[in-house]
Amino acid sequence: MDERVREHAKVLVDWSARVEAGDRVVVDVAEDAHDLAVAVAEKLGERGATLLTTYGSDEVSRAFLRAHDGEFAENDPKLAMLEAADVYLRLGGGRNTTATADVPTERRRAAKQANKRVREARMDTDWVSTVHPTRSLAQGAGMAYEEYQQFVYDAVLRDWESLADEMAKVKDVLDEGSEVRIETDRTDRDGGRGPSRRTDLTMSIENRTAVNSATSVAYDSHNLPSGEVFTAPYATEGEVFFDVPMTIDATRVEDVWLAFEGGEVVDFDAERGEEAIAGVLDTDEGARRLGELGIGMNRGIDRFTDSILFDEKMGDTIHLAVGRAYDSCLPEGESGNDSAVHVDMITDVSEDSRLLVDGEVVQRDGTFRWEDGFSSA
Amino acid sequence: MDERVREHAKVLVDWSARVEAGDRVVVDVAEDAHDLAVAVAEKLGERGATLLTTYGSDEVSRAFLRAHDGEFAENDPKLAMLEAADVYLRLGGGRNTTATADVPTERRRAAKQANKRVREARMDTDWVSTVHPTRSLAQGAGMAYEEYQQFVYDAVLRDWESLADEMAKVKDVLDEGSEVRIETDRTDRDGGRGPSRRTDLTMSIENRTAVNSATSVAYDSHNLPSGEVFTAPYATEGEVFFDVPMTIDATRVEDVWLAFEGGEVVDFDAERGEEAIAGVLDTDEGARRLGELGIGMNRGIDRFTDSILFDEKMGDTIHLAVGRAYDSCLPEGESGNDSAVHVDMITDVSEDSRLLVDGEVVQRDGTFRWEDGFSSA
Repeated sequence: MDERVREHAKVLVDWSARVEAGDRVVVDVAEDAHDLAVAVAEKLGERGATLLTTYGSDEVSRAFLRAHDGEFAENDPKLAMLEAADVYLRLGGGRNTTATADVPTERRRAAKQANKRVREARMDTDWVSTVHPTRSLAQGAGMAYEEYQQFVYDAVLRDWESLADEMAKVKDVLDEGSEVRIETDRTDRDGGRGPSRRTDLTMSIENRTAVNSATSVAYDSHNLPSGEVFTAPYATEGEVFFDVPMTIDATRVEDVWLAFEGGEVVDFDAERGEEAIAGVLDTDEGARRLGELGIGMNRGIDRFTDSILFDEKMGDTIHLAVGRAYDSCLPEGESGNDSAVHVDMITDVSEDSRLLVDGEVVQRDGTFRWEDGFSSA
Repeated sequence: MDERVREHAKVLVDWSARVEAGDRVVVDVAEDAHDLAVAVAEKLGERGATLLTTYGSDEVSRAFLRAHDGEFAENDPKLAMLEAADVYLRLGGGRNTTATADVPTERRRAAKQANKRVREARMDTDWVSTVHPTRSLAQGAGMAYEEYQQFVYDAVLRDWESLADEMAKVKDVLDEGSEVRIETDRTDRDGGRGPSRRTDLTMSIENRTAVNSATSVAYDSHNLPSGEVFTAPYATEGEVFFDVPMTIDATRVEDVWLAFEGGEVVDFDAERGEEAIAGVLDTDEGARRLGELGIGMNRGIDRFTDSILFDEKMGDTIHLAVGRAYDSCLPEGESGNDSAVHVDMITDVSEDSRLLVDGEVVQRDGTFRWEDGFSSA
């Protein structure tokens, strides 16, 4: 076995999930995540956990959903299993990222609705989601198989402890701050044709708590890889341009520009996929307000692959999501922006950019203040 | 998908497990049983069941068991899952039939002991075990892949209803009878060298109930394929020769001869693997007495493949097991022969053989009385 698979399992079990003797662990194994499952099982055996492996096959789900009449019942065995579990590890890595493309949206939604308590039980465990690099994911990322393997391991096999310390500095700044301002300086292409490329956005983060998403349940962080600090902004004003391409609802989206007034999107434009953006913004009231400001700090990720698990964590990027805010960023008992959607959009801040908190520059051209001691004026 | 896979799924879900709307189904999927899992999921969707798939990987088990210190806890999520399930379908078909060969027996036993209630919960469901034909199983059977696929489907895709009727005749004869006698007439090879090849065995079946194992939970039959009628004999006298080779505890066993007096094995011999037989008989007191008499009636199985799932069901064979008897053959509240082992041995009765019940010939040279109306004298 590739030694990197064993290292991946070690990070997942020890750093991310903090598995201890006696922990009751459920591991969900995608079609081609077998090797990682074997390595994780070995690690769980060493730790003295119990292990139940489920089979997370999109092709099996598709066959079931398509054949079903749509009147779904709650899945009692799954609920009972999760309620008896301490830890849930999801090992992604199927054979076809579009394996459920022909399942009607309505059918999918009905199955989801019937299993709300199952999802809640899963969220109540110490859950962590990761992916084993498969050929299908490599293809989705537009990469060769071995190239993609290295890409994944570069992102996953970090010195998480030291990155967590680094991210704590950003969290401290955000927790103490009241207002965030993002400025980037992109020259309009084509003599001003296409969407505006300007970013000058301010938002309030007063009374909000940032999450140091250091890829461990100990940090309330549930993705491996992670490596972002995020909070729940509000009262957004100004305009923002996202230069990282992405796929929203199976539509390719490029060069999105949003304008905010009084916390709400009042205008928008996109070079490509404008209708997908419109669809998102029209979902409900909360879909026009920001739910998340995230600062990507994982420098092991060196390119965009149209996978949010990786893209939003990439070092020297900032992402904003319209829609639902995470409770963990809000004062106890308070609820933040609510919406059925949460759609992240990303901007590259590695050059010609500034991130300011309460008027002081925290990050400039991808470099944090404490990295080279630049003046914060 | 191969249409035979869909037919296999249909037999499993409809005939064997009798799945109905609302049934809560757990399907255990071996490493290479993916295609059958997809077909089964489709069928379960049609029936309106719920579906949870577990991943039954020997390689995952091996990694976990080898790494563990041996102090196993009960698997709570697995127990909770099975207690909430109505139906459990096991789809065998791994990548290597000897994948757990280097797991110490003690470790395996300890894990098993810790999960006694898990096994009981599984037995309390409507469970059915089958196999998807894989290259590994083909290799184990000494066959080409496509040849093995056909072998499996010939055994599985039967007219079960009509075979069940046929087997009911044998069950009736056994239920009404008191004494079974088996005689075969094999010429000693090599001028009498090697084990005796004589069979003339009598046993009591008074007060015992035969199981019509028609490969359906409706018949208390839990293997697909099945196709045998079995009961729990006692007071065995005489000698019996088994000409079908098999593997016991990883030892190849050929041409076994057992002699019984007062219900117990008093002498034995084997052309090959005598030490494995000795090991079985020395396990405990019950290991020297018969636990099962089975009559194989699945004529879709046309050869021995050293897999008990198929071999003991083959038409025109009779098998006897030393060790544990099945409760379903015993009067309510009575317990039969008890033992930690249950080891089946098989003899070919397609020629030079007679099966008598209370002195009347029921089967001669592989043909039942009602098949050609021979005299039962």
